[in-house]
Amino acid sequence: MSLKSWSTIVAEKRVALAAKIPAAWRLASVPDSTELRNAVDFPRQFMSERSIAITETTDARVLLAKIASGQYTAHEVTEAFCHRAAIAQQVVNCLAEIMFDDALKRAKELDEYLRVNKKTVGPLHGLPVSLKDVFRVRGTNSAIGVVSFLDVLDTVDTEAFIVKELRALGAVIYVKTTCPTASSHIDCHNNITGQSYNPVNRLMSSAGSSGGEGALSAIHGTILGLSTDIGGSSRVPAAVNGVYGLRTTYGRLPYLGVHDLIVGNTSAPFTIGPMSANLSNLSLLIESVLSRQPWVADPRVVEIPWRVDHYDAVTKKAGAGGLVFGILMTDDVVTPSPPVQRALKDVKARLEAAGHEVVEWTPPPHREADTIINTFYGAEGGHAIFKALAASGEPADHLVKDWFGEAPVPEISASEFFAANERRYQYQQAYAKYWNESYKFTQSGRPVDFVLLPAFHANSFRPGEAGRYLGYVTIANVLDHAAVILPVSHVDKKIDLPDPAFVPIDERDALNHSFYNPEDFDGAPIAVQIMGRRFQEEQVLAAAKVVDELVHSK
Amino acid sequence: MSLKSWSTIVAEKRVALAAKIPAAWRLASVPDSTELRNAVDFPRQFMSERSIAITETTDARVLLAKIASGQYTAHEVTEAFCHRAAIAQQVVNCLAEIMFDDALKRAKELDEYLRVNKKTVGPLHGLPVSLKDVFRVRGTNSAIGVVSFLDVLDTVDTEAFIVKELRALGAVIYVKTTCPTASSHIDCHNNITGQSYNPVNRLMSSAGSSGGEGALSAIHGTILGLSTDIGGSSRVPAAVNGVYGLRTTYGRLPYLGVHDLIVGNTSAPFTIGPMSANLSNLSLLIESVLSRQPWVADPRVVEIPWRVDHYDAVTKKAGAGGLVFGILMTDDVVTPSPPVQRALKDVKARLEAAGHEVVEWTPPPHREADTIINTFYGAEGGHAIFKALAASGEPADHLVKDWFGEAPVPEISASEFFAANERRYQYQQAYAKYWNESYKFTQSGRPVDFVLLPAFHANSFRPGEAGRYLGYVTIANVLDHAAVILPVSHVDKKIDLPDPAFVPIDERDALNHSFYNPEDFDGAPIAVQIMGRRFQEEQVLAAAKVVDELVHSK
Repeated sequence: MSLKSWSTIVAEKRVALAAKIPAAWRLASVPDSTELRNAVDFPRQFMSERSIAITETTDARVLLAKIASGQYTAHEVTEAFCHRAAIAQQVVNCLAEIMFDDALKRAKELDEYLRVNKKTVGPLHGLPVSLKDVFRVRGTNSAIGVVSFLDVLDTVDTEAFIVKELRALGAVIYVKTTCPTASSHIDCHNNITGQSYNPVNRLMSSAGSSGGEGALSAIHGTILGLSTDIGGSSRVPAAVNGVYGLRTTYGRLPYLGVHDLIVGNTSAPFTIGPMSANLSNLSLLIESVLSRQPWVADPRVVEIPWRVDHYDAVTKKAGAGGLVFGILMTDDVVTPSPPVQRALKDVKARLEAAGHEVVEWTPPPHREADTIINTFYGAEGGHAIFKALAASGEPADHLVKDWFGEAPVPEISASEFFAANERRYQYQQAYAKYWNESYKFTQSGRPVDFVLLPAFHANSFRPGEAGRYLGYVTIANVLDHAAVILPVSHVDKKIDLPDPAFVPIDERDALNHSFYNPEDFDGAPIAVQIMGRRFQEEQVLAAAKVVDELVHSK
Repeated sequence: MSLKSWSTIVAEKRVALAAKIPAAWRLASVPDSTELRNAVDFPRQFMSERSIAITETTDARVLLAKIASGQYTAHEVTEAFCHRAAIAQQVVNCLAEIMFDDALKRAKELDEYLRVNKKTVGPLHGLPVSLKDVFRVRGTNSAIGVVSFLDVLDTVDTEAFIVKELRALGAVIYVKTTCPTASSHIDCHNNITGQSYNPVNRLMSSAGSSGGEGALSAIHGTILGLSTDIGGSSRVPAAVNGVYGLRTTYGRLPYLGVHDLIVGNTSAPFTIGPMSANLSNLSLLIESVLSRQPWVADPRVVEIPWRVDHYDAVTKKAGAGGLVFGILMTDDVVTPSPPVQRALKDVKARLEAAGHEVVEWTPPPHREADTIINTFYGAEGGHAIFKALAASGEPADHLVKDWFGEAPVPEISASEFFAANERRYQYQQAYAKYWNESYKFTQSGRPVDFVLLPAFHANSFRPGEAGRYLGYVTIANVLDHAAVILPVSHVDKKIDLPDPAFVPIDERDALNHSFYNPEDFDGAPIAVQIMGRRFQEEQVLAAAKVVDELVHSK
């Protein structure tokens, strides 16, 4: 443990981080959010045309092809993203670690390799990939917002397995992105990096826990990033920042060596979720990682390769206008805000216009699922976080207090934990039964293929106003289902008016309702969520593609 | 709760069970074990030639083909197995429930279906399948040796999912087989059914917890049965009784609705293990069940179909003399008995003669794995079992005392449980690393494909002398690997002499050593275990086939 005060350690870390931005990329001043609400295009003025073109290419396959053919060098691509990420950091405060030097060095090696060998090192040759701070990377901290964790510098040995796999695939690691303290909140503030903001509407939080990743993705400071999801931690930031995100099934991608505050809670695990401003990059990431057969090294990964036939089957069925969606307009626990409701209705209309079927979805109550998952989250009573904070003497910030309370509470026993496991299994069975028997209430007589639901009850939120309800995202965690976030549109203050007839379900619902106002939220992204079933990453990504094309056509 | 005393309830249950054996099948007397040590062929004298031929057909595919072609009726096949099972019950006490009437009725329906429709109902049309008592079946108890559970009669609604699937596949359910109290011991005694014996050597226990299944299989009272495995519970009875058994990976087959004393302990789950006197029947069972896509209804089943290409790849590699086996002669915790050592050496010699490579296997210590799994087994302190016993007032038998002690102990906390999960994951990683890097110490430079190890430290044991060590089987539970039991030979009292130079590792090792004597063990089966990796059911079954052919050639 350091002898320095926690605030000194933080101050030094901030200075060190800032110093990693080359002087040429430092901004003299940054307009505040009232002056510059949407900062997505703000970096352009500081960048070359070529760098803008590179960073605003959202399809990683396009960039990879250009690198492989020599049209771009990996070095210039990396440099462009480093530059834009550096600007993003100054505008929305989304970086936890900066590794520009290593990245540029690696990019040069890759260029040299290509030159000499006339082939790439792998399918991600030269692609800059950003990482949430939880991914341990050699030579950096994985503080995850906890001051005492700044004591640990990761090495080649402690580097997360998937990071090594990314390197082997040819990816270039250049930044790590912010998360709230211990990656344990749906907002994004901690004592080290402070608050992260949403670049599409800087009045808003970036959301969390993968908030930095969402923000960086939205501002085109990354083309593809890795986040993690324990209860929407990947999906809510994707939704709020208007990018694509995927919650993978537990055991689909290798989590080995990723930094967790609490290890061994196998009933509430984080799983890896890729995030990107382009949907197809999510498939690219999964397909690439699975091509390495990660189940050989990580005992928790299930031996399921990328099944292109599963993906294609959905596409084919969709082509015949034959997909069936269940739509959840509200779970009757917290009412989705007006923009979220509009997005769902819009997607429904477009699906129906394209010949797909959309039926009302009234599954086993989300309230029950919410109770179950909260038992898992709180199982150890918060002891780990308060111990971690105490190690440096840093105070609990407002998010830690919101999530863990003021102090630890007694943990539950093994048999209470088992009872919660069983209760979850009962819920999973009930949900599966409802789903399997959905053919009874569809017009086509076919069962529902996918569930369309809010990504979050709010499309966005101001820092500190996350609203204490995660049910629309945690449903996929309770069920261990694959789920995709799909950006649909943006708040229009003229259209998205509060419902004058709104009657709150309870105090929490009223609170969430009170957070929304068209003026502040104007321009903020709106997304929907598409949920498949367990290990249906291929299917849900294919379904998202179908919906994406309908939503973004015309 | 019943007002009757536990002993009255048991007496009534025993009378009811015995009454389900038709008078014509009751034996006037049964020779004792000194007179009739090996009872495998004993039933023949009471059976017709045709019934003997049916029950001694071990390949289910052969029987199924004859039923499908009309050479046998499902009814006569069912009747033959009912008859032989009835005799088995009187000779080795292996049945917990008898459903001959329902089975014969169902068989008649199947014959009628075939006659009318000129096709079978499914791939298991007319095949009698036996079930360990843990599988809930309509109209019967699933007492699992606990008197208070005799209060519950299962119904169509509570019947285990896989039992329904078996019915849909065409199987005929006719008996349930014994297990120790709460299916929680490697021996096989409880207060309801008493002790089950090994038909190949009736001085010996049938072992447990799937003891009745092992005994019934060895005496040809079943052609294919379902057992379960939490720590060798399927594999040790298979080994001891000289039949084939498979421990499946958690999530490979549907466990939904199977009776557990403790539910929700997801770190020490039972998984389903088929058992048979014929190796190929294990594949048939898995392939048939997976053809029903059980992952749609059971949320814990992983969507992995039967992968015939995985099976064939092993066969092909073996054809080229190219398999690499690691062999574990001892784990240095408990010394395998002389017959077990002989069997391993014999298999090694045959593999090498066929051109396969066999290298010494010294994985991360079994002692560590043993400590980890025992933490999971004991996590709730035994509260559930003592509560279940107290409900009827029955006393703990010697096996309950051996496994759970005299009374419950304090359970562990959630965070202690998490710590054990993490410790297991570390062990799994270390084991995977050792395995992955095994190419460094093989002659061929290729990594080990499968591990050859004892099925149990003893090839067999007398009732009450199981010896308090499960490490050779629990290694697969800790790692969640697929593992097959393969019968190799039988004890020969002239060859399998105690090692005069034996030096015990500790008191437990000395105790186990003291249990063995060539005279009593003479004729008892000896088996080995072949362990693959997670979800490698196909591969390990293919490897077992390779070894089986070598071992049983000439």
